[in-house]
Amino acid sequence: MIQNIKRPTLIIDPEKVKRNISIIAQKASRHGVKLSPHFKTHQSIEIGKWFKKEGIDSATVSSVSMAKYFIDHGWKDITVVFPLNVNEIEVVNELAAKSRFTVLIDSLDTIEIISDKLDCPLLVLLEIDSGYHRTGIDATDFEQIKGILDAIDQNENLFFSGFYNHSGDTYRAESKEEIEEIHERTLDALHRLRQEFSSQHPDLILSLGDTPSCCITENFEEIDVIRPGNFVFFDLMQEVLGSCSVDDVGIALASPVVFKNRERHEITIYGGGVHLSKEVLKGDDYLLFGKLVEFEDSGWSKPIENCYLKSISQEHGILKVDESTFNKLSIGDIVGILPVHSCMTADLMGEYVTLDGQVVDHMSGPKFRD
Amino acid sequence: MIQNIKRPTLIIDPEKVKRNISIIAQKASRHGVKLSPHFKTHQSIEIGKWFKKEGIDSATVSSVSMAKYFIDHGWKDITVVFPLNVNEIEVVNELAAKSRFTVLIDSLDTIEIISDKLDCPLLVLLEIDSGYHRTGIDATDFEQIKGILDAIDQNENLFFSGFYNHSGDTYRAESKEEIEEIHERTLDALHRLRQEFSSQHPDLILSLGDTPSCCITENFEEIDVIRPGNFVFFDLMQEVLGSCSVDDVGIALASPVVFKNRERHEITIYGGGVHLSKEVLKGDDYLLFGKLVEFEDSGWSKPIENCYLKSISQEHGILKVDESTFNKLSIGDIVGILPVHSCMTADLMGEYVTLDGQVVDHMSGPKFRD
Repeated sequence: MIQNIKRPTLIIDPEKVKRNISIIAQKASRHGVKLSPHFKTHQSIEIGKWFKKEGIDSATVSSVSMAKYFIDHGWKDITVVFPLNVNEIEVVNELAAKSRFTVLIDSLDTIEIISDKLDCPLLVLLEIDSGYHRTGIDATDFEQIKGILDAIDQNENLFFSGFYNHSGDTYRAESKEEIEEIHERTLDALHRLRQEFSSQHPDLILSLGDTPSCCITENFEEIDVIRPGNFVFFDLMQEVLGSCSVDDVGIALASPVVFKNRERHEITIYGGGVHLSKEVLKGDDYLLFGKLVEFEDSGWSKPIENCYLKSISQEHGILKVDESTFNKLSIGDIVGILPVHSCMTADLMGEYVTLDGQVVDHMSGPKFRD
Repeated sequence: MIQNIKRPTLIIDPEKVKRNISIIAQKASRHGVKLSPHFKTHQSIEIGKWFKKEGIDSATVSSVSMAKYFIDHGWKDITVVFPLNVNEIEVVNELAAKSRFTVLIDSLDTIEIISDKLDCPLLVLLEIDSGYHRTGIDATDFEQIKGILDAIDQNENLFFSGFYNHSGDTYRAESKEEIEEIHERTLDALHRLRQEFSSQHPDLILSLGDTPSCCITENFEEIDVIRPGNFVFFDLMQEVLGSCSVDDVGIALASPVVFKNRERHEITIYGGGVHLSKEVLKGDDYLLFGKLVEFEDSGWSKPIENCYLKSISQEHGILKVDESTFNKLSIGDIVGILPVHSCMTADLMGEYVTLDGQVVDHMSGPKFRD
């Protein structure tokens, strides 16, 4: 199959992906928390089915369009963890009419704008900010939070479900200990919120969801729902953070070799920013856009040492390789590249292919077929 | 029209784009060089027609797939300035059978692999490297170049057309003077090549093609063909390089406001890495992923001072704004973002929309419709 590849193709290893799903599902079950995996990473109906086989029937997404894709394909319990976009209220009404649909609200203005535009019940998570400072209400600002809760309670179609926190700052952490610290800070913030508001809302749920925390910690005290996403494929960024081993990475970009430069020991591949994205890992004196692997009958090798993607432009990728790899690779060969950020690579490629030639869907649709 | 936008939409200003096309076409004409614009920036049949109106009937692309898109839509003279991918030789044969089709070759191995697989005449540009060090043969390595020319001449279906150089290092230049210096270095390298090989190939052409050089220089001595691409839209990166003014930027991402944080004076928009790409401009103490503009009836304002996109994740964009802009913008408003790198943003969005609601095609196809 690999030998027939003509142009950049995103190869998926279903065994690795299913193993990644199984491990996190078991972890959630062991801790008594519900797993509502974030589907923004894979955006795939087929991969959604692999989750269903593990008993998962609830999913998290990052846009209303993505919610629609999964609800149209039979998912009944979807949460959009992106601040509700009031311009999409029509579709939100449609989706809420045919599913258990939860949205994220973090402002009074949003509630006011949609208040007379809702046709049916809508579950609401309130996004709080325990320190990442992207979106959400300051987790200690009980007054503002109470104001929003009251506004939700006063609307006949809005039903408060609970609090949500995304600790995206774990992606900037420099050690597992730092990730644990961020996670503890988040747990603490959520616990205080339950204490404060459980008399008004005794059934409120606490939910959180970054992959680094969910992979590294064993402490999910009082947490009801976790929403990690990236773990389904993992990538080089997660390897650096300590969320996974490089053997767990479930997708690799297959790219043809198109040029070799002997003096610089560089190999040019057809695979660039429009395939991998320009996400980069920075070392002291280098940039790394991907690692080189060799395809095998049923998967791919470990990364080849001392070989990495040193730069990319729109369609070009430049591999820095050692002498023996340089000599081994020929024009026309298909090499594998492990991505720095799998969510972005999957979104760009718009479909996956297994090593036995099965196509796996992605919501974006294929860009690079004949 | 802007008020009806529901989710991230790439707005195009046809007047600006047509003006950008006209200016470079006139410049080429004034200097007596042929303009074979690089279509990897817009990837659009409709925008291709705007070039045709300026008398342009030859285009440059960065992949065989892109060549096919334009040839299938009536273009007869296409050059792929990406090292020939031998795995696509079947499609190359198809395209060469129905157009004046030129490919880039920079290795003997490539010629050997395709030598008995060609069905019809193929024009060949030899890519040389005058200092960018991405792909191409060292421009001073006459021996290696002669070896490749001889191999081309010995194949009955390959016809040497000339030399091509892409000075991508102009993108790292810190002044217009430095861009001119890089350009002079390239001219010098190309002149020497003509001197060396014109007896063997008296009709060889010299071609080059980065937007910064083509916009800034007035020296095209002995150059036959220029292949810039980005000028069609320009972007913030080109503004920094001095290739354009910010008023020339021809596309802007329309994004809904979804959240406001008063303490930090930050506004969250629905518009992130899957829309704009993660291309970034780095200042001493900040990162900039886009500039804020206000849509008007027939276009958009100048960038609003002291307001910029400070960070992005998959779907979120975080705008840092001043007090008055903060107060002016409401949840649900549609703001405009000028992109850092228009090629990547266009590729991600997969279509353009004009302010009067006309859809303009992009080869990738739309990702964010209902």
